[in-house]
Amino acid sequence: MKSPFEHRIAACQERLEEGEADLTVCFPSPNLTYLTGFEESPSERHLLLFVPARGDPTLVAPAMYEAELSDLPIADLQLQLWTDSDDPLEAVENALATDSLGGPDPETVLVDDRMWTTFTQDLRKLLPDAEFGLASTVLEPLRIRKDDVELEALRRAGELADRVSLEIRERGDDLIGTTEAELATEIDHLLAAEGGEEPAFETIVASGPNGARPHHHGDSRAIEAGDPIVLDFGAFVAADLEAGTGRYPGDQTRTIVVGEPPAAYECVHETVREAQRAAIDAVEPGVTAESIDRAARSVIETAGYGDAFVHRTGHGVGLEVHEPPYIAAGNDRELEPGMVFSVEPGIYLEGEFGVRLEDLVVVTEDGAERLNDTPRGWETGR
Amino acid sequence: MKSPFEHRIAACQERLEEGEADLTVCFPSPNLTYLTGFEESPSERHLLLFVPARGDPTLVAPAMYEAELSDLPIADLQLQLWTDSDDPLEAVENALATDSLGGPDPETVLVDDRMWTTFTQDLRKLLPDAEFGLASTVLEPLRIRKDDVELEALRRAGELADRVSLEIRERGDDLIGTTEAELATEIDHLLAAEGGEEPAFETIVASGPNGARPHHHGDSRAIEAGDPIVLDFGAFVAADLEAGTGRYPGDQTRTIVVGEPPAAYECVHETVREAQRAAIDAVEPGVTAESIDRAARSVIETAGYGDAFVHRTGHGVGLEVHEPPYIAAGNDRELEPGMVFSVEPGIYLEGEFGVRLEDLVVVTEDGAERLNDTPRGWETGR
Repeated sequence: MKSPFEHRIAACQERLEEGEADLTVCFPSPNLTYLTGFEESPSERHLLLFVPARGDPTLVAPAMYEAELSDLPIADLQLQLWTDSDDPLEAVENALATDSLGGPDPETVLVDDRMWTTFTQDLRKLLPDAEFGLASTVLEPLRIRKDDVELEALRRAGELADRVSLEIRERGDDLIGTTEAELATEIDHLLAAEGGEEPAFETIVASGPNGARPHHHGDSRAIEAGDPIVLDFGAFVAADLEAGTGRYPGDQTRTIVVGEPPAAYECVHETVREAQRAAIDAVEPGVTAESIDRAARSVIETAGYGDAFVHRTGHGVGLEVHEPPYIAAGNDRELEPGMVFSVEPGIYLEGEFGVRLEDLVVVTEDGAERLNDTPRGWETGR
Repeated sequence: MKSPFEHRIAACQERLEEGEADLTVCFPSPNLTYLTGFEESPSERHLLLFVPARGDPTLVAPAMYEAELSDLPIADLQLQLWTDSDDPLEAVENALATDSLGGPDPETVLVDDRMWTTFTQDLRKLLPDAEFGLASTVLEPLRIRKDDVELEALRRAGELADRVSLEIRERGDDLIGTTEAELATEIDHLLAAEGGEEPAFETIVASGPNGARPHHHGDSRAIEAGDPIVLDFGAFVAADLEAGTGRYPGDQTRTIVVGEPPAAYECVHETVREAQRAAIDAVEPGVTAESIDRAARSVIETAGYGDAFVHRTGHGVGLEVHEPPYIAAGNDRELEPGMVFSVEPGIYLEGEFGVRLEDLVVVTEDGAERLNDTPRGWETGR
């Protein structure tokens, strides 16, 4: 049985064969992790994956990674390892040899969008007649539709965040007097205790007037009775892979109120909830990303809060917490089954409070599957 | 009076004028920090510094950085800010306009070695007739000779590491029973208490046989009587800049012994000490980097331990902990006043112990200035 990485490399090669290009070269980045399950930071060391339209994939890497790389579940992966006493460009030349590529010199080469230019310049010198493009041309259409391994991980990340969200909500008035920073730390501990690898982004706890700042992070403000509190968090979970790496984030937001909500709060909360419902109801294959943004925004505009919804409706989620598709005005990309993104409308009233509700959804054959399922109201306690 | 950044930009422009190229474009990297004092992580957001041979430097950046960027002490710096509702490529086009460049379209453009290829591809499209090279062509020769602000910071970083090194040495036999990991954590706390910003790299505590691995990090092994202990650490300190950022690392190594050293230890230690002394004695302007490596290696080879000196003799240190010049065989670069690098020979005896001694040195007009000055022997205690 093929591993997920073998499937992904085969899909990449199929796209290359369909005429996109002759060769893709990846640098340490989410693209490399997606195709091989190997994760490393960008550095001066030559670490490059060559995926030709035909031949076998070849990984050029420092020899010190040999043990790890030999374990990757990619049967045809060729290793070109180099040591400190070698010239790594020789390993690159071997990867570019006719034997490795399964054909003549490539005419079109797609390099990782994040490849450092110093490496791209080397490739340009070694392939002076080739045209160069970006690897996202073939990889983005693959990565944007999540496979089963990815969806399973994203569902688990959603459930994990939901358990923590519920636990915080149930504390109700016990939250009064806690500072935002304390609560954020507590949430991070709960995420870890539930099995999260690490927070997927800096946990947002924004109480009272701080809620009007969409990216406010927990500070020394103590939560008071009557405060709406925007709680936006999630943790990475490891994908269920035999070998290789891949981790996927949770990302959900709830706004709760301890004590009695301020005047006008309930109406604003209900508007955001209705906007989110309208947007998720609009999700199905073939509709555009911007139409989902429009569905949410229309509800908020109709309620008279259009100017207070100051950000896009959502972002794709996968190996990266923010990736395509972006659910925003101007993005006419059509939704396809397997796409995963956030739907997170909000209303921000400076000096008063903010409300945001966020769920991740998967586009299915005929609609949307929600990856989060905790109450969307503001009421706290058990 | 000009700020250090104004001096550096002027020196960069001088080199461009001397015929290297018409324009340099930097991406978030140590190059950008060196020239502007601004530090940010690489990302999809367009954040690019344009330094033309003539005209003023221009920074293309997200508008959210406006306050910080306006404070940078670079009088002629032009800002091309873009917001989420703009096309950032328009800001790039403005930076490339004849007015900004002080002349016609550039024929030769040097891009940051670490620029993501997606940005370089944009520049290639906007300047289809230009030739592209790497910014290191002009910036490496500048960055490799440290200016007064940098040297002052490196001296402070050296003194800081020395104070912590002495304190650990003075503990002598009190170290017995402490685990490597505990001692590494303790060292990190001491570095912070002495004013370090953060460890410059993962602190190395390698006791007994673990010392035979040059990059061993502290683990659960408890230090025993008779253990040689390799201690390699340093912290970043902030350069003394009116505004803008720049931080420089300490990096020194001492090998000490608690209790009585093992058989043959003293001879090996003395060999490393002599190798380090010979290498530092050889430092002066005009000699090659590899000759310094040779000076250290000869002493160790003569003593019969050539195979046990498994790494290069040193590396340059500046905004990066590892940067040119590399003190290694094959590097015929001539030393120049103001270069700063480590001199760190070692002998590694698998299954027994390791010895490494490391100091940072500055090349002066007629020799070397050491940035570290604690005892180089193995004896501990007060």
